[in-house]
Amino acid sequence: MLTELIKTERVKQLLPEIKAFMAEEVFPYDLAWSKMPFFQLESTLNALREKVRAKGWWLPNFDPHYGGQGLNLLEHAFIAEAIGGSPFGYYLFNCQAPDIGNMELLHIAGTPAQCEIYLKPLSEGKIRSCFAMTEPEFAGSNPVRMGTLAVKEGDEYIINGHKWFTTAFDGSAFTIVMAVTDPTAAPHQRASMVIVPTDTPGLKMVRNLPIMGHTGEGWVSHSEIRFENVRVPASNLLGREGQGFALAQVRLGPGRIHHCMRWMGICERAFDLMCRYAAQREIEDGRTLGDLQMVQQMIAESRAEIDAAKLMTLSTALLIEKAGQKAAAEDVSSIKFFTAKILNQVLDRAIQVHGGLGITDDTILALFYREERAARIYDGTDETHKASLARKILKRYAVSKG
Amino acid sequence: MLTELIKTERVKQLLPEIKAFMAEEVFPYDLAWSKMPFFQLESTLNALREKVRAKGWWLPNFDPHYGGQGLNLLEHAFIAEAIGGSPFGYYLFNCQAPDIGNMELLHIAGTPAQCEIYLKPLSEGKIRSCFAMTEPEFAGSNPVRMGTLAVKEGDEYIINGHKWFTTAFDGSAFTIVMAVTDPTAAPHQRASMVIVPTDTPGLKMVRNLPIMGHTGEGWVSHSEIRFENVRVPASNLLGREGQGFALAQVRLGPGRIHHCMRWMGICERAFDLMCRYAAQREIEDGRTLGDLQMVQQMIAESRAEIDAAKLMTLSTALLIEKAGQKAAAEDVSSIKFFTAKILNQVLDRAIQVHGGLGITDDTILALFYREERAARIYDGTDETHKASLARKILKRYAVSKG
Amino acid sequence: MLTELIKTERVKQLLPEIKAFMAEEVFPYDLAWSKMPFFQLESTLNALREKVRAKGWWLPNFDPHYGGQGLNLLEHAFIAEAIGGSPFGYYLFNCQAPDIGNMELLHIAGTPAQCEIYLKPLSEGKIRSCFAMTEPEFAGSNPVRMGTLAVKEGDEYIINGHKWFTTAFDGSAFTIVMAVTDPTAAPHQRASMVIVPTDTPGLKMVRNLPIMGHTGEGWVSHSEIRFENVRVPASNLLGREGQGFALAQVRLGPGRIHHCMRWMGICERAFDLMCRYAAQREIEDGRTLGDLQMVQQMIAESRAEIDAAKLMTLSTALLIEKAGQKAAAEDVSSIKFFTAKILNQVLDRAIQVHGGLGITDDTILALFYREERAARIYDGTDETHKASLARKILKRYAVSKG
Amino acid sequence: MLTELIKTERVKQLLPEIKAFMAEEVFPYDLAWSKMPFFQLESTLNALREKVRAKGWWLPNFDPHYGGQGLNLLEHAFIAEAIGGSPFGYYLFNCQAPDIGNMELLHIAGTPAQCEIYLKPLSEGKIRSCFAMTEPEFAGSNPVRMGTLAVKEGDEYIINGHKWFTTAFDGSAFTIVMAVTDPTAAPHQRASMVIVPTDTPGLKMVRNLPIMGHTGEGWVSHSEIRFENVRVPASNLLGREGQGFALAQVRLGPGRIHHCMRWMGICERAFDLMCRYAAQREIEDGRTLGDLQMVQQMIAESRAEIDAAKLMTLSTALLIEKAGQKAAAEDVSSIKFFTAKILNQVLDRAIQVHGGLGITDDTILALFYREERAARIYDGTDETHKASLARKILKRYAVSKG
Repeated sequence: MLTELIKTERVKQLLPEIKAFMAEEVFPYDLAWSKMPFFQLESTLNALREKVRAKGWWLPNFDPHYGGQGLNLLEHAFIAEAIGGSPFGYYLFNCQAPDIGNMELLHIAGTPAQCEIYLKPLSEGKIRSCFAMTEPEFAGSNPVRMGTLAVKEGDEYIINGHKWFTTAFDGSAFTIVMAVTDPTAAPHQRASMVIVPTDTPGLKMVRNLPIMGHTGEGWVSHSEIRFENVRVPASNLLGREGQGFALAQVRLGPGRIHHCMRWMGICERAFDLMCRYAAQREIEDGRTLGDLQMVQQMIAESRAEIDAAKLMTLSTALLIEKAGQKAAAEDVSSIKFFTAKILNQVLDRAIQVHGGLGITDDTILALFYREERAARIYDGTDETHKASLARKILKRYAVSKG
Repeated sequence: MLTELIKTERVKQLLPEIKAFMAEEVFPYDLAWSKMPFFQLESTLNALREKVRAKGWWLPNFDPHYGGQGLNLLEHAFIAEAIGGSPFGYYLFNCQAPDIGNMELLHIAGTPAQCEIYLKPLSEGKIRSCFAMTEPEFAGSNPVRMGTLAVKEGDEYIINGHKWFTTAFDGSAFTIVMAVTDPTAAPHQRASMVIVPTDTPGLKMVRNLPIMGHTGEGWVSHSEIRFENVRVPASNLLGREGQGFALAQVRLGPGRIHHCMRWMGICERAFDLMCRYAAQREIEDGRTLGDLQMVQQMIAESRAEIDAAKLMTLSTALLIEKAGQKAAAEDVSSIKFFTAKILNQVLDRAIQVHGGLGITDDTILALFYREERAARIYDGTDETHKASLARKILKRYAVSKG
Repeated sequence: MLTELIKTERVKQLLPEIKAFMAEEVFPYDLAWSKMPFFQLESTLNALREKVRAKGWWLPNFDPHYGGQGLNLLEHAFIAEAIGGSPFGYYLFNCQAPDIGNMELLHIAGTPAQCEIYLKPLSEGKIRSCFAMTEPEFAGSNPVRMGTLAVKEGDEYIINGHKWFTTAFDGSAFTIVMAVTDPTAAPHQRASMVIVPTDTPGLKMVRNLPIMGHTGEGWVSHSEIRFENVRVPASNLLGREGQGFALAQVRLGPGRIHHCMRWMGICERAFDLMCRYAAQREIEDGRTLGDLQMVQQMIAESRAEIDAAKLMTLSTALLIEKAGQKAAAEDVSSIKFFTAKILNQVLDRAIQVHGGLGITDDTILALFYREERAARIYDGTDETHKASLARKILKRYAVSKG
Repeated sequence: MLTELIKTERVKQLLPEIKAFMAEEVFPYDLAWSKMPFFQLESTLNALREKVRAKGWWLPNFDPHYGGQGLNLLEHAFIAEAIGGSPFGYYLFNCQAPDIGNMELLHIAGTPAQCEIYLKPLSEGKIRSCFAMTEPEFAGSNPVRMGTLAVKEGDEYIINGHKWFTTAFDGSAFTIVMAVTDPTAAPHQRASMVIVPTDTPGLKMVRNLPIMGHTGEGWVSHSEIRFENVRVPASNLLGREGQGFALAQVRLGPGRIHHCMRWMGICERAFDLMCRYAAQREIEDGRTLGDLQMVQQMIAESRAEIDAAKLMTLSTALLIEKAGQKAAAEDVSSIKFFTAKILNQVLDRAIQVHGGLGITDDTILALFYREERAARIYDGTDETHKASLARKILKRYAVSKG
């Protein structure tokens, strides 16, 4: 109910239209799409993207100057849930990771030239991009440890390093890379962000990572890459030197919200499939799975948990909107682990209710089950967020002690 | 954040004052109070009640005509959380079960005479009351099964039956009893509510039930009672004959909200105690419990869960306020089992963090741990609410099947 | 410790040899194998099978008359755990599902001719087989509901029906099919088992089912198949008419034990990977993941749970060995859901400790995570076994009531 | 089944007799006993103790020289489960904490004179004793931190300190106190054990701790005590100076096993009550609670978990018997947290199945629920044991890294 209260007129108008679009033009097809190689599927998706653009839905939460709809984070949350139930929803609306994060970064920190060269075509959906941060040699829980170096030489940066989980590198036009520019600086001032066109000599794709049985390609892939004496003009620096971590926070904050919103969409879709199947699958004449209390329990607990996760996510979006990301740091950690857990639970139950069918790829549940195990890991593991949240809370108590 | 949005000016003004009152005049003392027999404690509580009344906080969510503050359910939710952290908070504000439920019942269904005789002194805190529904011989999960009979004979009802868990019977002025008035009617039309002054001949207290090691007395007790040829005037019928279940729903709906709100208060108090102890208890020089990740995990999970439960509860209060109880039936079931579970988990963790101290009565945690195990049972067990919620959801899917 | 007590001399001698074999010749390679199409991998596996045979380990728990080692179920349990940690372990020892179940069936119920034609080459590893029971149209929780019919006409059965989850149908020599032979009989006497060579006209593979993103082939596949007027000689009946369900029980009982044993092997392998990674992955200089309490918690809980599951499984194997399957029915239900849950939990934790690496296919964990989600579904869902176990227990209490 | 295998003839003979005794002479009465003050109940218990002694069951696992039955730890495990289902079972057999632990200590480390004065009457049940270790000022998770000092002066120790959770101090004849005798020694060599008769001047009971709502008295109490210049002869030193922690380990090891065994008895009793109630409580005509799947789930999960915990505990007892306590350190940690969790879960479910009745003291469940929350805290919290177990496991992996 609370959720109704915070829907703007714009959202109230858009939501039913977008939901209908998803129900008619996306959900019936996306399971099949998910089985196609991305580069083969791309034209189909692009055709739908044109529809989305024509409807005035393109880039829902981005600057109208760049063709976006200018929704604020909270308004976007509702749209995001509606389209998040398909693995391709965000892509169709051009608000998909990692591109939207890069657009936000460029919008905030890019020079006019950078915006013209990189942000404009990205916002138009003409190119794709990626973000190279994680390194196989260093634990993600400690982002300060990083081996990639960008050494300034004259008017250029020479970059050497090894990255992986560079999502959507394959076929992208450029990457934004996190690299150490001053190893002697204070830990959080060591790194900077540099824009590197992917055709720059020395930037090599080692492989697309095989993830949960699939290697993928194009937008649906995660690459291991190497920078070997990669040279880019110094003007490719994004923001200032040493600003890498600060900008990463700018990028990660809304990124986590986008994920949580998307998970809500997945949860609702899984919940719908679970209920539909429970209500219709006969176990004996006139009795369905849904008549079994153990199934009822799975449905009831899922309903309550999804509602809770949704309220938490929307509340956090509102807080960011009103008070900024920093003020919402604790809430962001909360929803990251709280919502990811619920996502995993709901998917697990939806599969269990489907029995054998649930583990096949005849429903989309098994895809989500595989893909979204990562939800408890990427952008900060459960453990990292829990420790971070608790330490922030305890700090207040420790102060009151002194 | 979402919660801020729905605080009215009235709430914003009242909350800090009431929180300060609780922090200064209640929380430091209520552990000691909880160890005193109720009839001995009563004068202390009554003195504080006078303070509450003088401050203009009396009966926060009741009709000003009866001395209440006229807060709506949502406004009351915030107050309720603030005062719910003490076992005596609701009592001090005269919005405690079972009296507030009876006041609501009388307000809705009472005749002017009934209101004058029963509601008025109740609202003034001059008498206490109780509600006799549960019977030891019949499972609570099926309220239609009931053995207590009220047979009309001339101008009187003659009541015979056996009840237990009649909370606060001991020392109360009257009970409202659920009794079958027409055994041949449709199941949900069989029972009626009748007001019975507790000094009526034939109404006997068998015992105060020993609950989790304590028998209690007065307001802090749950009685087993017998009606043996108890005669009351027919004018003591509350509402119409056969309206018992309908009225019980009227009573139970907000009752569950009141419980959930109160649990939020308990959760916050337990969370505060847990954090305080974790931040201050040394395990070695310069290191406290809060430096241990397993403790951090308990704190972080509790924080997220409490926030979720609070949002769910407030959202449901808002829904009831806007659309009525019937519209909120599913949400009420959700929050009943979702919130009770979180309450139990948070109390369990708070005790665990306190170690040996946690199981002593040197903190209030052990009291809540004992008392609130019942939260997953009273007013509908977890299992009952889960089955009910799931069946309502599945009904919609079954229809779409046809 | 208890487990040591029940190891026979034979087991004590075999175990270290077989463990060394697995550690040296299987575990380092099986991740790569799992990425190869089965028909391409087959020759590699067959070469290793020859080694296994040469070592005297072939068919550990089968009749020496057929080349087996004659280990009893309990002895086999230890071997099974040792080899179960690889997806190919059972196959290499020729004790893999579905073949071993069919061998057991044929051994118990086959005619001499059936044994000569089907059991002999199966036991020699020269052919593969499958078992066609589950049907897409009927919920697996109620095996009595079945649409496949085998109608006797002269000296032949004419079989029509639709099956799926017919594991390893692809490339197999024959299937044993469950089909209704007498629709008018009592529910559990309706079905019979019939042997059908897979090249029989009318037996068609609809498709290999896509499971968790993989379709697979050969032994590593699950087919949807159709019987369209398939004719086999009446002598292909296995056992007697109407004996289908009784034989299915014979097949399923040890099958569940075999699964649980295999899961223990998987658990131990995942546990080993988790500990190795935790002990060696640095999070900062001189500190590894294993220094984090949240990781320690995952390790400690996994250790205790695996030990518990192993004891339960071995105890049940012993009971079957001593008192037969019927006596062990409750224990078999217990270990099925208890062990499958622990398997899923341990895999989940092992992945979580590995972070990003855990969801890649650079370790074998992600494969197990995908494949073994089914453990809580096949051969009776958790829910089916829990309900069955509880009803058997309650029956004893109900009797005492009467 | 495995459990049958390790029952000796002695156990097979004793078990049915002792079970019958418990069923007839203890279980029907112990709920009432639990509501009586200990000093009032004592004579009833002592009369039954005489029966136990007469039957030849006294002190099941203690030296026959002292009137014990000489059962080994594994044999005792079975007896312990049988008698552990009553809060008074161990007491009746004179194998109750804290006395049995003190008997074991004295037996191992006591001088002949100490054994004569303290062990003999203890073994005969003529006196009671206690063990003073935990201090309110220091976290139990770090036993090395301790404030109590025993300073040698001439032929005496002068003891000063503050202890709590000194179980059964009230009415005991002597305490064994852990006190620092050499603050300059290595941490684990600082403390010693000293025997202090409770009537020694300066040894004061501050209070019996209120635990979960009850203060208790006599054997059923936990005291806070102070040592103020308490003087005892130097000959009251138990073992050698600095041996305190080593002896504490001797005491705690079997102590944890005794607890786990006892918990198994409680689990079985709760399980029996839960099943009985589920099978007999009608929810509508001809249908009982046990017909509900959510109840079946609670029963099935409890059965599997209890069986698992029992196997783990017996296996650990066997390991201690064969290889000693040190070899079993990891297993002891495992069963401590694994079994305590299951105990808490089973009690929680048994209460839930009983509904309102479950929280009353009309069954013994609520008593166990209150009392055994401490199981996850005393003798090492869950967290302490998990961290300890994981670190031991990881040590082996770290070594293999080097």
